[in-house]
Amino acid sequence: MEGKEKLSVIINQIEMLTQAEKDLIVDEVHVEDFEKGTVLISQGQKTSRCYLVLSGCIREYTNRKGEEKTTNFFTEGEGTAVYVGGGKNQVSDYTLECLEPCTLMIGSESMEDHIRKLIPRLDALIQQVSKEKLEASRAEMTRFVHSSPEERYAHLMDTKPYLFHRVPHHQIASYLGMQPQSLSRIRKRLFDQETQPPN
Amino acid sequence: MEGKEKLSVIINQIEMLTQAEKDLIVDEVHVEDFEKGTVLISQGQKTSRCYLVLSGCIREYTNRKGEEKTTNFFTEGEGTAVYVGGGKNQVSDYTLECLEPCTLMIGSESMEDHIRKLIPRLDALIQQVSKEKLEASRAEMTRFVHSSPEERYAHLMDTKPYLFHRVPHHQIASYLGMQPQSLSRIRKRLFDQETQPPN
Repeated sequence: MEGKEKLSVIINQIEMLTQAEKDLIVDEVHVEDFEKGTVLISQGQKTSRCYLVLSGCIREYTNRKGEEKTTNFFTEGEGTAVYVGGGKNQVSDYTLECLEPCTLMIGSESMEDHIRKLIPRLDALIQQVSKEKLEASRAEMTRFVHSSPEERYAHLMDTKPYLFHRVPHHQIASYLGMQPQSLSRIRKRLFDQETQPPN
Repeated sequence: MEGKEKLSVIINQIEMLTQAEKDLIVDEVHVEDFEKGTVLISQGQKTSRCYLVLSGCIREYTNRKGEEKTTNFFTEGEGTAVYVGGGKNQVSDYTLECLEPCTLMIGSESMEDHIRKLIPRLDALIQQVSKEKLEASRAEMTRFVHSSPEERYAHLMDTKPYLFHRVPHHQIASYLGMQPQSLSRIRKRLFDQETQPPN
């Protein structure tokens, strides 16, 4: 499937847009393929780009006190934040790297402004999405703060089990804020519990 | 100072608005005083209200598996999320309680729509604030995941030292995702380090 076709599949899920509006967005926006290993944005770089994953997987990470910390994974249908790089000439706190060959829709503030002008009522949708993203981010924080390492692992297995097949486990451990050995121990313990014969 | 005067002080800091627009907002919005201990929103309640703290302190908490978990404190100039209760007839995941006598600006979706119609260019400001809130929430998550309990405590002391004078410490411990005893231990250890005589 070509990049624009992949984009159509995702855009077509937006119920509030007419077909003409969907076609217009697909025509206007920029879609590009990237090789595995491509660094899309580097920490410290000035940028206001964002990416919507049409296929593939992006890892987001940041360097804290000399150590690389994985902060997010983005797969099909997920978008990196527009705030990478911020709007006020800030530099990005994160590096974005393609963990797989990726087809991505590339957004920018100027493209967003351009599309908004073409479809003014898109504003309401963007605002709704922003609110939902903020709500999700807050809920994730609450859940994380008040859960054990086991619960954090179990939650990721429940919500994004495919990551364990697509991403190196030491990066998942970092994302969960634990050492790789701790993740292995937890996985083994839970696996043993599940496969234990009934008494 | 009366509630509306307190509101003026905060609204006047918004540089992009004209004086006439600021006055209009102050005239239109609803400001109310609440006694210490007032529950503004209960977990499970259907609502789309939000609050901007003009004076006082609100605690946000949630009940997880029978245990009360503190998720946020809001003081002067800080606003609870509009997403409390969500837009789609969801119920609130959080309870909001006044820890002190509070003067609050009360927002609602209908009030937001009303003000937006009066000042259409407020949209841009609201969108900017939404992006910044999302960015801040993401940064907070990254920091939290990849820091030790000591670092989490030190960060709160750096950014909101006043909370330690205004809020029961067991609620701060919960907010930091630790037991009250752990918070006491960390505080004692860091205090001892600071007050140690030089060799």
